[in-house]
Amino acid sequence: MGVRQTRGVRTIHVIGIGAGDPDQLTLQAVKALRDTDVFFILDKGEVKSDLTRLRRDMLEAHAPEGTYRIVEARDPERDRSAGGAAYSPAVGDWRSARADIYEQLIAGELGEDETGAFLVWGDPSLYDSTLGILQEVLERGKVAFEYDVVPGISSVSALVARHRTGLNRVARPVQITTGRRLAEGFPEGVDDVVVMLDAHQAFRRYADQDIDIYWGAYIGTPDEILVSGPLAETAERIERLRAEARERKGWIMDTYLLRRRTAEE
Amino acid sequence: MGVRQTRGVRTIHVIGIGAGDPDQLTLQAVKALRDTDVFFILDKGEVKSDLTRLRRDMLEAHAPEGTYRIVEARDPERDRSAGGAAYSPAVGDWRSARADIYEQLIAGELGEDETGAFLVWGDPSLYDSTLGILQEVLERGKVAFEYDVVPGISSVSALVARHRTGLNRVARPVQITTGRRLAEGFPEGVDDVVVMLDAHQAFRRYADQDIDIYWGAYIGTPDEILVSGPLAETAERIERLRAEARERKGWIMDTYLLRRRTAEE
Repeated sequence: MGVRQTRGVRTIHVIGIGAGDPDQLTLQAVKALRDTDVFFILDKGEVKSDLTRLRRDMLEAHAPEGTYRIVEARDPERDRSAGGAAYSPAVGDWRSARADIYEQLIAGELGEDETGAFLVWGDPSLYDSTLGILQEVLERGKVAFEYDVVPGISSVSALVARHRTGLNRVARPVQITTGRRLAEGFPEGVDDVVVMLDAHQAFRRYADQDIDIYWGAYIGTPDEILVSGPLAETAERIERLRAEARERKGWIMDTYLLRRRTAEE
Repeated sequence: MGVRQTRGVRTIHVIGIGAGDPDQLTLQAVKALRDTDVFFILDKGEVKSDLTRLRRDMLEAHAPEGTYRIVEARDPERDRSAGGAAYSPAVGDWRSARADIYEQLIAGELGEDETGAFLVWGDPSLYDSTLGILQEVLERGKVAFEYDVVPGISSVSALVARHRTGLNRVARPVQITTGRRLAEGFPEGVDDVVVMLDAHQAFRRYADQDIDIYWGAYIGTPDEILVSGPLAETAERIERLRAEARERKGWIMDTYLLRRRTAEE
């Protein structure tokens, strides 16, 4: 880590790197990559090979060789594919275990005048735990650092861009929720609902309703799959495509927008 | 427009250019800028000077001089500052008037083998009419073109990044809505609500509730203002700052997240 003249303060960038297409990086993200000494890459098991490679490719494309280190660690990711019940109850323990790891990484691997970065798929503000975990590490008070957030193109924005549709309809609201919540019922007061983290195709429950779906998997990557249309006509096809893709690649990342037809249309 | 060897098809990029910080452009957006022959810039009256300049600066920074033309037109923008009632009823007429202009621009200013672009603040998927209008122009059938959408960093993503907070809380939903809707009541089934297009500070109605606000104006620009905290303690200050800034600059773009404290916290 070299000789430090002055006692600095650790800095951490939380960088949104887009939904899969390397060209979704913003200029701000590229600058943050170039400004980083240590990249923390957390291995999430089965999705490792593809997604870790994509991140390494981004670094090779944008951060000058020899100016940074990569530190990999095992991420105690919950296995969302194991069942719907896995989501909520153990979140506290899981977050605490993750904070332990982040704390050790920052204290042990980042010099006091260095800059580290966590690369987050999509946008760090949407269903990502990095910000909450860093806040928890700070509150523990064992290691001090500054941090900032570089917003990224979310899978939600990428999805609707590929479908060339809006997220909301004119002057109307849109809700972003989870597959688990959608399985409990269609959200009240909205006719446009984006669903993330759905391992169980909760949309199937609504296939008898007058709802259009805009679905996408691996958005922005060469494996991208897009399907849109009335749920009644597309639900089975999406289910099949999703199962086949998941079998073939070993993992899947998908998102969808449900748009209920209303009397106005 | 030069001599055309073959009869091509007009192409249009709808490019999200981020919420105000020129570094929020994505690499994909930069490529699309470079690929464009004609930029259509629609003048929105009072916000013209700052925002038109920002867009021209982006073009000068990224599109090689002499490779593109800029075509400006008057946008029949509804005056949202005129009153809450202005929003909905005349939307159909307004959209139709806008479609007339877009149709004339595309047919009259874009050669059949050229590529045009509309630059959209934030993300074209969120409370922006460009996609709907292009679709209407296509359905009229008088001018044919292909189009694609380049997603951008929305003011929503930019807002929460600057506040270093998430859009949603763990495993919970978030709704994005308008000031007009919020004035009618707090959305059902959600405790996290992002509000856009609020000319009347609808948040004031909720200042007696246990709600935190994360507010921002001119996000990502040198004029950026950020305020966060309990609504009871910040509502008046935001109202004052907002009025002062609007008076000073002649226009304002602001967005906020309301986060209701729940029993879990």
